Amino acid sequence: MAISRTLRELAEYLGGTVAGDELKTVTGVSSLDDASSDQITFLANPRYASKVATTGAGAVVLPPGAERHGRNAIHVANPYLAFAKLLTLFHVASHAPKGVMEGAIVGRDVTMGSDVTVYPGAVVGDGVTLGDRVTVHPGAVLYEGVSVGSDVTLHANVVVYQGCRIGDRVTIHAGTIIGSDGFGYAPDGDGFYKIPQLGIVLIEDDVEIGSNTTIDRAALTATVIGRGTKIDNLVQIAHNCIIGENCTIVSQVGISGSTKLGKRVTLAGQVGVAGHLTIGDNVMVGAKSGIPGNVPAGSMLSGIPAFSHREWLRSSAVLPKLPDLKKTVAELEKRVRELEAKQGV
Amino acid sequence: MAISRTLRELAEYLGGTVAGDELKTVTGVSSLDDASSDQITFLANPRYASKVATTGAGAVVLPPGAERHGRNAIHVANPYLAFAKLLTLFHVASHAPKGVMEGAIVGRDVTMGSDVTVYPGAVVGDGVTLGDRVTVHPGAVLYEGVSVGSDVTLHANVVVYQGCRIGDRVTIHAGTIIGSDGFGYAPDGDGFYKIPQLGIVLIEDDVEIGSNTTIDRAALTATVIGRGTKIDNLVQIAHNCIIGENCTIVSQVGISGSTKLGKRVTLAGQVGVAGHLTIGDNVMVGAKSGIPGNVPAGSMLSGIPAFSHREWLRSSAVLPKLPDLKKTVAELEKRVRELEAKQGV
Amino acid sequence: MAISRTLRELAEYLGGTVAGDELKTVTGVSSLDDASSDQITFLANPRYASKVATTGAGAVVLPPGAERHGRNAIHVANPYLAFAKLLTLFHVASHAPKGVMEGAIVGRDVTMGSDVTVYPGAVVGDGVTLGDRVTVHPGAVLYEGVSVGSDVTLHANVVVYQGCRIGDRVTIHAGTIIGSDGFGYAPDGDGFYKIPQLGIVLIEDDVEIGSNTTIDRAALTATVIGRGTKIDNLVQIAHNCIIGENCTIVSQVGISGSTKLGKRVTLAGQVGVAGHLTIGDNVMVGAKSGIPGNVPAGSMLSGIPAFSHREWLRSSAVLPKLPDLKKTVAELEKRVRELEAKQGV
Repeated sequence: MAISRTLRELAEYLGGTVAGDELKTVTGVSSLDDASSDQITFLANPRYASKVATTGAGAVVLPPGAERHGRNAIHVANPYLAFAKLLTLFHVASHAPKGVMEGAIVGRDVTMGSDVTVYPGAVVGDGVTLGDRVTVHPGAVLYEGVSVGSDVTLHANVVVYQGCRIGDRVTIHAGTIIGSDGFGYAPDGDGFYKIPQLGIVLIEDDVEIGSNTTIDRAALTATVIGRGTKIDNLVQIAHNCIIGENCTIVSQVGISGSTKLGKRVTLAGQVGVAGHLTIGDNVMVGAKSGIPGNVPAGSMLSGIPAFSHREWLRSSAVLPKLPDLKKTVAELEKRVRELEAKQGV
Repeated sequence: MAISRTLRELAEYLGGTVAGDELKTVTGVSSLDDASSDQITFLANPRYASKVATTGAGAVVLPPGAERHGRNAIHVANPYLAFAKLLTLFHVASHAPKGVMEGAIVGRDVTMGSDVTVYPGAVVGDGVTLGDRVTVHPGAVLYEGVSVGSDVTLHANVVVYQGCRIGDRVTIHAGTIIGSDGFGYAPDGDGFYKIPQLGIVLIEDDVEIGSNTTIDRAALTATVIGRGTKIDNLVQIAHNCIIGENCTIVSQVGISGSTKLGKRVTLAGQVGVAGHLTIGDNVMVGAKSGIPGNVPAGSMLSGIPAFSHREWLRSSAVLPKLPDLKKTVAELEKRVRELEAKQGV
Repeated sequence: MAISRTLRELAEYLGGTVAGDELKTVTGVSSLDDASSDQITFLANPRYASKVATTGAGAVVLPPGAERHGRNAIHVANPYLAFAKLLTLFHVASHAPKGVMEGAIVGRDVTMGSDVTVYPGAVVGDGVTLGDRVTVHPGAVLYEGVSVGSDVTLHANVVVYQGCRIGDRVTIHAGTIIGSDGFGYAPDGDGFYKIPQLGIVLIEDDVEIGSNTTIDRAALTATVIGRGTKIDNLVQIAHNCIIGENCTIVSQVGISGSTKLGKRVTLAGQVGVAGHLTIGDNVMVGAKSGIPGNVPAGSMLSGIPAFSHREWLRSSAVLPKLPDLKKTVAELEKRVRELEAKQGV
């Protein structure tokens, strides 16, 4: 279980260059303060540069050009990214496949790749396809005809409704629901008639979705989560949404039906987006904001309803002073009236 | 599996009248653009009226008085509703009952109607009653003494706590929790003493509830969801709420304890409603709004705290200009002071 | 099943003193209006003091010094708290332990205390520890190495990820997810590289958590929920948060990563708190507010972004008048310009 690597090996893994002893070996990663001589540490924040001289670590990951104070070092473009990669290398155990375990429920006509794990209490419906190295945790339920790619982890109590498709290298955390019916009704007298939701959800490669999130199936086509997009816990994505690639959607965001997000859109916590909108590439929306209309690429917005984030900061600063402002205006009115009276207006 | 209907049969099903060939048969429904000669299409938006002449469809559902351009047509009051009904007829397969399947867990003294399906991994507690044509998907858990009407679908991992009652023709989507304890505590020194939550949740007929929603049991009586009401995903309804008939409660809405909603109330996404309030019939509340007090029937509200939606639209338009407004007032003050000085005030 | 207690016994249980017949027995608790002669009732709201004379109850719980109108009474400091305690005594049945039931799935090297119940469909992973009188409902999933104290109830479909620790007298309602991965990624070109989430969630004693809530594991250390804290439904608590003792966190609140709450903090419904903040003891935040910065102990805040609750009330009252205010300022500008013109400014 213990892993040991030379700095030369690590530099190759990280795409960096060694300064110092290339054959020095380390067995783990830790912080500048806590690392010991058999561990490697990293400098991500220049504020702590002086600690490079005093850390107990056996080696340090440094940004380009940073002073190494005579320490063994690996220079990389992005030490924080390198830290994440080192954590993965040293501390994330690979999941040994266990096959279809006793107590797992697997339907008819199921296709499975190699090295699959289906835990007890998991339910894999008829006609489901699982790729290689898929892990289905207890209580996860795949309805009929679901298709799952390779290197996918579905955590406990995830539900995927019939016919939905999940790409490669996707992780979905516990309790998340993929493909429940979109919220669509036609008014019918005093009540409502349900519009059948006949589409699916399509989750592209390299997506990660948090826990207890809900993504509804499309009415007729597909709700799409684009490649590389990361979605946090308790997020709602309504039917027919098309979410672009590499978006970041933070906890408790809600996106209404048929809205399209471009690439690399960031929606901070508790944001709401109205339906049938187009949000351009690289848009950033501040926490708790409400988006009522289309947003051009590159915009930074905040507020309910949202406008320029910069203006919102200035506008927000005025809010606590509104009662004073109102009072001042009332006084000005009186003073102007008096001035006018004196002038005989 | 293929379904074929004459226009005469469809007109009867939809409550409309045929113009053209009553014996023309169709086998499916599609859009004006995509329909083929064995399909029926519909005109819901007058903007697309000219497509009626050019569509490849074998028949068209039209509103009263619309030009049929010589096509076979069915005239109905509400073509969008007719579209939903045709989708249901042609494309929603009825669920063949499978009985209590191997791997389902059914307790003692359970009463079941006819044509029930209990999937593997579903748990039906002691003393539960299920009506006819009930489907309980994998991982759904019914605690002791739950009562479920007929034609009910409980999707995967739905949980219904002890003693709660569900009417007829109810659908509850995956991961929704019915009847967990209300959030009630009595302060007790530095901490809290739990107030036992001894009531139930009562869900009336024709209700649909989305996924990962939570509806808490009442402290002593019943939290009620009125007939025909539709609730979206990730909604919170607290203990002792009484929700009226045919309400529309959109995703991520939260309703605090003991609040009563009238009939046909619409709460848009992420709305919050305070506790112990009365919201009248036909009230509409805009997305992300917060309701701090009672609301008379027929109101349209928005904002935090909410006021007239119309005024909110005008008020919101001023928000980005607040810094300018403040600056203008400061300048006015200065100018008035100068005017006063000149007048020797 | 029927419970009977003398007023003397109840006074001892409640920490109060009897006035009247100490040997009078009662068998239940009800309201002033509904109680019968074998029941005890309570006066919590002085508005209803006159009902003490007319209630059909056999005894009344009264605050210190309240007139008992000749009735048998128990005087206590806090009648509402006493009511909750009497409800518990008379109406909350203790849960008879059932052991590991058929259909429960228990892994290797599991340690269990006495009087445990593991329901069918529950999954207890390898190396899990359960204390005494623990109840694990159907569909609940404990990953490897989870540690659970005594007198704990985990409702249906609760998920606890690997290594998380739960104290004594904790209740977690259905569908809540403890210990899913924190939302942490390092930018890597156009996409993101996942930062491994290697920590745990630590839930201290006497915590209650509602349904479908999510609490993420820390990146390296522990996300902590302090002793006695109560958390409602659909709450999001991000990685590395430290929540103090006896906090009250209402439904749909979201707390971003690495934020620390002091003791007895109250966050009302749908509040959002940004990351890396320190919120002092006894802070109260109004519903739907957004907290962008640190908050000193004892503050009452509201608004997005939040400021003094008292000022927010006054500021909010101005919002609907903003269009009028803007118009008034425009008129004043014109009038001042005219005054200036007359003065030859």
